Amino acid sequence: MTGAAIRVSEIFGPTIQGEGVLIGQPTVFVRTGGCDYRCSWCDTLHAVDSEYRDQWQPRSVGEIWEEVRRLSGGVPLTVSLSGGNPAIQPLGPLIDCGHGDGYRFALETQGSVARDWFSDLDVLVLSPKPPSSGMETDFAKLDECLAMAAGRPMTVLKIVVFDDGDYAYARDVARRYPALPVYLQPGNHTPPPPQDDSAKVDIDGVMNRMLWLVDKVTGDKWFDARVLPQLHVLLWGNRRGV
Amino acid sequence: MTGAAIRVSEIFGPTIQGEGVLIGQPTVFVRTGGCDYRCSWCDTLHAVDSEYRDQWQPRSVGEIWEEVRRLSGGVPLTVSLSGGNPAIQPLGPLIDCGHGDGYRFALETQGSVARDWFSDLDVLVLSPKPPSSGMETDFAKLDECLAMAAGRPMTVLKIVVFDDGDYAYARDVARRYPALPVYLQPGNHTPPPPQDDSAKVDIDGVMNRMLWLVDKVTGDKWFDARVLPQLHVLLWGNRRGV
Repeated sequence: MTGAAIRVSEIFGPTIQGEGVLIGQPTVFVRTGGCDYRCSWCDTLHAVDSEYRDQWQPRSVGEIWEEVRRLSGGVPLTVSLSGGNPAIQPLGPLIDCGHGDGYRFALETQGSVARDWFSDLDVLVLSPKPPSSGMETDFAKLDECLAMAAGRPMTVLKIVVFDDGDYAYARDVARRYPALPVYLQPGNHTPPPPQDDSAKVDIDGVMNRMLWLVDKVTGDKWFDARVLPQLHVLLWGNRRGV
Repeated sequence: MTGAAIRVSEIFGPTIQGEGVLIGQPTVFVRTGGCDYRCSWCDTLHAVDSEYRDQWQPRSVGEIWEEVRRLSGGVPLTVSLSGGNPAIQPLGPLIDCGHGDGYRFALETQGSVARDWFSDLDVLVLSPKPPSSGMETDFAKLDECLAMAAGRPMTVLKIVVFDDGDYAYARDVARRYPALPVYLQPGNHTPPPPQDDSAKVDIDGVMNRMLWLVDKVTGDKWFDARVLPQLHVLLWGNRRGV
C-alpha cells in the first residue's frame, strides 16, 4: 500500500447517497478535511473550517481502505469521496486500491483544483458554486478538471440554487458545458453547525425553494435540467453520520 | 395521424418526475384510463376504477399530441406514459408521432401485458406488484415484456415495498433479472382518494418506511438497489395535476 497520508474528517455508511446523480444509491462516504473555498452557506464546516483541523486525522490508504471494507462487509459498492474539497487530497492511490477490490468511486468537488487521477474515477460531480456562496468560479480551472477527467468517468454538473442570481449562474454554466447533465439542488439556509448535529433544519424553507425551482425550470422549459432536493436533509435533518 | 383512440384519464405538466430512474426530470404526464390490476393500495384509482370510466376520454393521437406540445411549448422533453396500465392502450402511434418531434417516452407498467411497441420506448419501467398489493405476478408475462423491449429502451425494475413480505419479493425479482437496475420505493398507505385531491397524506409513515427500507437494504448489503421515495408526495402531498 502506497500513497501519502490523507486528511480524513469522517468515514461513515453504508447509507444512501442523498443528492445528485447517485441519489438513493447505497454508499460509504469518505469525507476529507480541508477546503480552498469558504462558502457562506457551507453545510460541512466541520470538514472545512481549520478550527476543526484537529479532528482531521492523517490516515494511510491502508487504514482508510480497511475501514471502508469493514463498513461495507467487503461487498463492493460506490464510495463517495466528499469534503471539504477532496481534490486537495492525494486520493489516486485510494481509488486504485479500491478498484482492485471491485469498488467504484464518485467524487464531488467545486472544480477549483484539477488532478490527473480524476480520470480514474467512476463518477465525477463538478459542483461550481453560485454567487450566493460568496465564491467566484475560475472557469479555466473547471475546464482543466474536465480535461483531467478525459471523458472517462461519468461527469455531471451539480449546482446549488438559493435565488434568482444563482439560477442565472446555473443556466450560464449549463450553456457553457452543453454535453454535461445538470442537477439543480435547492439550497439549505440552516446547515448543521459543526458542533451540533441535532440542530433544527428549515424543512419548509428547503421544500419551498424546491417548489420555486421546479417552477423556474419548467417555466423556462429547461427540460434537460434535473431538480433534486437533498434527500438526507429531508430524512435525517441535520444529523451527521447518516 | 393514424392509430386507434386512446383512453386518457389526464394530461398534465410539465412538472418533475417524482420517482424512480427519472426522478427530478421535467416531464409531461399522459395518464391513460383502465387497468387489468386492482392493487389494494392503488394511488391512481381515478385512472383504474371503472366507476371513473366516464372521465376517460377516448382521444386521437393528434389530439393528445397537440396537448403535449401545447403544455411543453413545443420544446422536446420526456413524456411519461402512466396509468392505470398504459400497456393496455394502443400507444405505438403516439410514440412514433412524438419521436418525429424529438420527444422521448418513458412508460411504466406492472408488466402484465406485453406490446411490440415497447421496443420503441426510450425508458421502460417494469413495476411488478408485491404481495401486499393482493395481485400475483405472472412471470411469463414479465419475461414477455422484456422480450418485446428487445434490449432497446433503458429498462429498469421499480418495486413498491410496504413490509417484509414485499421486500423478500423485491429481492426475488431482482435475482431473477440480474441485468436490470432496481429501484425500491416505500409504499404510501394513504393514497389520494379519487374524488378528493386535498386529502391528508401520511408523510411520517412514508418517511419511516423509507428509513426502514434504507436500513434493510444497507443491512443486507444489497448495494445495487436504489431506494427513493415518491418526491411528489413529499412536495405536493396528494394533489393531482402536479
